[in-house]
Amino acid sequence: DTGAQRFAGLDYEPMMDVSDDPVRTRVNKFRVETEDGKHRFGIRGRLMTDYAFVQDPFTSTDDEDADDGDLARYGTIIRRARLGALGVMYDNWEWQLEVDFRDDEVRFANAYMAYLFDNGRLAVGHFKEPFSLESSTSSRRISFIERAAPVDAYRPSRQIGLMYETLVPDYYAAIGAFGGDGVARDRDVTEGYSLAARASFAPVFDAEQDLWSHLGVSANYRANAYEWDRSGGDQKEYESVRMRTRLGTRAVDGRMIGENDMENVKDFTTVALEGGFGVGPFSVQGEYIRQDLNRDSNSDGFDGEPGDDVTSMTSEGYYVQTSYFLTGETRNYRPFSGDFGATRIQSPLSAGGRGAWEVLARFATADSYEHHNREDRQKLDHYTLGLNWYPEDDIVLKLNVMYVDAQRGEDGFGDGRKDWDSMVYAARFQFEF
Amino acid sequence: DTGAQRFAGLDYEPMMDVSDDPVRTRVNKFRVETEDGKHRFGIRGRLMTDYAFVQDPFTSTDDEDADDGDLARYGTIIRRARLGALGVMYDNWEWQLEVDFRDDEVRFANAYMAYLFDNGRLAVGHFKEPFSLESSTSSRRISFIERAAPVDAYRPSRQIGLMYETLVPDYYAAIGAFGGDGVARDRDVTEGYSLAARASFAPVFDAEQDLWSHLGVSANYRANAYEWDRSGGDQKEYESVRMRTRLGTRAVDGRMIGENDMENVKDFTTVALEGGFGVGPFSVQGEYIRQDLNRDSNSDGFDGEPGDDVTSMTSEGYYVQTSYFLTGETRNYRPFSGDFGATRIQSPLSAGGRGAWEVLARFATADSYEHHNREDRQKLDHYTLGLNWYPEDDIVLKLNVMYVDAQRGEDGFGDGRKDWDSMVYAARFQFEF
Amino acid sequence: DTGAQRFAGLDYEPMMDVSDDPVRTRVNKFRVETEDGKHRFGIRGRLMTDYAFVQDPFTSTDDEDADDGDLARYGTIIRRARLGALGVMYDNWEWQLEVDFRDDEVRFANAYMAYLFDNGRLAVGHFKEPFSLESSTSSRRISFIERAAPVDAYRPSRQIGLMYETLVPDYYAAIGAFGGDGVARDRDVTEGYSLAARASFAPVFDAEQDLWSHLGVSANYRANAYEWDRSGGDQKEYESVRMRTRLGTRAVDGRMIGENDMENVKDFTTVALEGGFGVGPFSVQGEYIRQDLNRDSNSDGFDGEPGDDVTSMTSEGYYVQTSYFLTGETRNYRPFSGDFGATRIQSPLSAGGRGAWEVLARFATADSYEHHNREDRQKLDHYTLGLNWYPEDDIVLKLNVMYVDAQRGEDGFGDGRKDWDSMVYAARFQFEF
Repeated sequence: DTGAQRFAGLDYEPMMDVSDDPVRTRVNKFRVETEDGKHRFGIRGRLMTDYAFVQDPFTSTDDEDADDGDLARYGTIIRRARLGALGVMYDNWEWQLEVDFRDDEVRFANAYMAYLFDNGRLAVGHFKEPFSLESSTSSRRISFIERAAPVDAYRPSRQIGLMYETLVPDYYAAIGAFGGDGVARDRDVTEGYSLAARASFAPVFDAEQDLWSHLGVSANYRANAYEWDRSGGDQKEYESVRMRTRLGTRAVDGRMIGENDMENVKDFTTVALEGGFGVGPFSVQGEYIRQDLNRDSNSDGFDGEPGDDVTSMTSEGYYVQTSYFLTGETRNYRPFSGDFGATRIQSPLSAGGRGAWEVLARFATADSYEHHNREDRQKLDHYTLGLNWYPEDDIVLKLNVMYVDAQRGEDGFGDGRKDWDSMVYAARFQFEF
Repeated sequence: DTGAQRFAGLDYEPMMDVSDDPVRTRVNKFRVETEDGKHRFGIRGRLMTDYAFVQDPFTSTDDEDADDGDLARYGTIIRRARLGALGVMYDNWEWQLEVDFRDDEVRFANAYMAYLFDNGRLAVGHFKEPFSLESSTSSRRISFIERAAPVDAYRPSRQIGLMYETLVPDYYAAIGAFGGDGVARDRDVTEGYSLAARASFAPVFDAEQDLWSHLGVSANYRANAYEWDRSGGDQKEYESVRMRTRLGTRAVDGRMIGENDMENVKDFTTVALEGGFGVGPFSVQGEYIRQDLNRDSNSDGFDGEPGDDVTSMTSEGYYVQTSYFLTGETRNYRPFSGDFGATRIQSPLSAGGRGAWEVLARFATADSYEHHNREDRQKLDHYTLGLNWYPEDDIVLKLNVMYVDAQRGEDGFGDGRKDWDSMVYAARFQFEF
Repeated sequence: DTGAQRFAGLDYEPMMDVSDDPVRTRVNKFRVETEDGKHRFGIRGRLMTDYAFVQDPFTSTDDEDADDGDLARYGTIIRRARLGALGVMYDNWEWQLEVDFRDDEVRFANAYMAYLFDNGRLAVGHFKEPFSLESSTSSRRISFIERAAPVDAYRPSRQIGLMYETLVPDYYAAIGAFGGDGVARDRDVTEGYSLAARASFAPVFDAEQDLWSHLGVSANYRANAYEWDRSGGDQKEYESVRMRTRLGTRAVDGRMIGENDMENVKDFTTVALEGGFGVGPFSVQGEYIRQDLNRDSNSDGFDGEPGDDVTSMTSEGYYVQTSYFLTGETRNYRPFSGDFGATRIQSPLSAGGRGAWEVLARFATADSYEHHNREDRQKLDHYTLGLNWYPEDDIVLKLNVMYVDAQRGEDGFGDGRKDWDSMVYAARFQFEF
């Protein structure tokens, strides 16, 4: 007798009836679907292995003691290792449960269920707050090893929340409410919340001509997490706010923006203006991001002297990047989600070809020079040249050569130096399944 | 040539022969089974996303400083995110390997192999100690957002152990021996052990009439973990014993029972008396739980003054809860395992229906007022009204409105107050696959 | 309409086309393969549950305070719980992503992609450095509960790196370069690197006669991780080097070798000489391992007095083990990878047989008596008798009875004793899927 029959009278879960659905199966990017399309199941993951080397050929600058010691000279890391399941149940209920194992820690990536309407979806769970062209694009699809400095520094994290977004061909709009950050295990903290919205459309789009364009705007208001300070009366003690970006790689951990947290922040609003254009193998994209932070002068630890302790600060930045596929491919811009999907390789290695080759350049700048502590202010100009090789769909080798030009306030980089500039060489090998 | 043939002479694992079993496949709750039923494989998981809001409208009470600061006003958490594999090998070897990613930490849920006999199973690995109707019921199947306070506080955790349990239609009996708790990485600790047993049957059961009943008893003896205290001679130093329950939600972390651990505990015995009854859409269930703790007056840190430091303590509690399906469903009581399985929805959304609607009420009380430290004793009365919506099988939205009435010893809740009462509003969205 | 058709114009990932590959499926050890063999996907895992009991019947010795307190008397652990996916894409790209959940922590096991050439593979990612017969053999396939003491103590860990290895029938050769250890989150540490090579062949091999032999050699050079010590000038501060082995079980954590780390180590070279021979149910294997460590006399914390602080040290050890299958099986030696694969059971339980029964004996010795700190030197002789029962392929129950005879320098085991000997009883139940 079969397993299902063996303890059949007992409703014993390990022996649950398997029922023999007629199915379609896809092996690469494993998916199984019932023939009526009402149920789907899949396993997916990604692995990104990075190496970086930091060189400082400029004897007139000081790269020592970027923190309280030297930076590492080189490093290897598993930047992202994600494993998860996804599916659709009962025709309209789409879900993911994906875990991120980078850095020896465990975090959630996507962990949600969404109800699919005819022209949109309502999601509840843990996912990205809708914000920015580059932030919305999956880490599997971004052009460089890391996202541009201002996006990396100022974008919101994934959070637990509720979001409605459109699923229509020509434009994208999303609105959501999200819970808060920095709460891990501190039971006294009220975790803050955010309201987030993003909208974009393609002024020009012609898939047959390989022509696309993108205009978008994102806005995000976040009320900061806090706990009440009992000893000091009814004052709130806010969680530190950390807006951080590094050298354009995580394999060496040099914190160029956000080395020092911002304190007493009550709330902050972040906006992004997004643009992009592509024709055939050529594309350009850019974004301007601005973050206005309000500090609570009644909060615990606030100085109280207006001259010494500012009540508002602005950080901002922008980037422009361009890409050219030497082998003729086109970036896969998707108007329905306002982001980029996978580029399909014209002549993969497995078909006897040379894969796709892409050359890239980017300038990015991030400015957190308005810091409540003058000693902790920071600025970064970041120049990157890139070369990507896609031997097959789903496999990429990236090389980035970067020049990093950073400035700090009185606190400096050590030995009294306030300027730091250096070459950074980084490589990534990534695949997805 | 196929992969299997390519390095065939080499027994190279990634190219292991796939062998083309004739299979049955189920997509929703992914399972694959060989046609002879001897081998099965599946992937399963669950995701529970919670939100809670704590209100204190009672100006005569003090909800400040329930710990050393205020509680959070609200919170969002991923309460359980589990992902794992399960299967059957060689007809009789059933296994699971399931990981729990809640709270940014990783724990094991079920991780075991069991040999299936004709009328029972012998399991070795990590799984629940057999105890209590509500504890034995999967978190996917419990009626409220959290288990009743005395079950949550006093029930044993999952442990590594050995267990035999019956697999027969009409009753359930289990006996097991388990290793210990609180050993993580402390190499000097001898981890304790437990002996656990549970038995239940259905005095009245008629599936066709939607009529069920449950009577059960559980008992658990645990010898506490300890290390030898060399400096103090041959005395044992016992691990702290933590019997904790919160506000009826984990999204705000208010520790109503078990705020303070019990020290010098040598061993403890926990018993549960279980009862339940259901007819059609109506059901009621309840349990009484009692825990007797013995303290070792020769152990390190014990006061030695009999008047100051008691040698035995009793905690106890009970709950009664009732449920009514407005849409006519019946709770899926399973006499063979003495717990509840999934309720099957009569008119799901995907079939044009409204899903299942269930209204619930519960009273629970837990009493840890016998504490060796008079200042740390605690009591809790917990009232809950609930509404559950099951749009489909495997998907539930829960709303719980709770009134919490707690008392403490001299240590109090801050400002000298020994009473705390508050409204708590909690919501959960959960799905399983 | 099917899911794939529903949002077809939108390239919406959750509704990605499933495409209906013609497939082969294997249920036990779940694998799916396209009929042309170009794509494969699988899920795999292992679970090892251990119990150990430590007895000290020798009143003339002192087993107290092996650390700063007594060892635990007994313990239960999940020694390895691994879950992961693996596959082949586009015919030539083989990959794994496997996570290890032992000890409540998360680590990576294999996480790589390799390109398959006709006679070899080039891998990038996280995997074992090629070293030693016993280290190269999967933990699922080793004979005893733990690897022999000198292998366990001196072998390299898995690292991020690049490796080429042969895939030919008669011999094995591998060469690789790897990044470093001990970097977790310390941003100032430059992580070190290693160069690793291994080669082996079978002087005599006749599969039909169940006759095999193995000769191999491994060598590994590792430059140690360091950070610059700014306050002390240009001196490097090296990471501590930990070469550790325990009692032959991890369920009780007694550190017999490597209780104390080695400091100021600049680099070290480890070599292994490997041999093995088997005929029918009988086999013997053994290895000699030697590790030469160089210390940097200019590094931070180095004493500077040549008599007090040595500049080089050697650790070494060897083991010999033998096995006999009472039920006639043969160890599955694989010349193409220079390691052992799964032994195939002749008469499994599910076919009405008694499974396979194997008796084993091992002597292992490890000597870290050359320690820069005379008080911290350590030696270990480790004797093991073993009994393995394989009821089915992929399921093993192991029993090990061990006698441990250890010595330490002035620091001792407590109460001034420098000798420690004890019986250790350990059991494991493991399965893989």
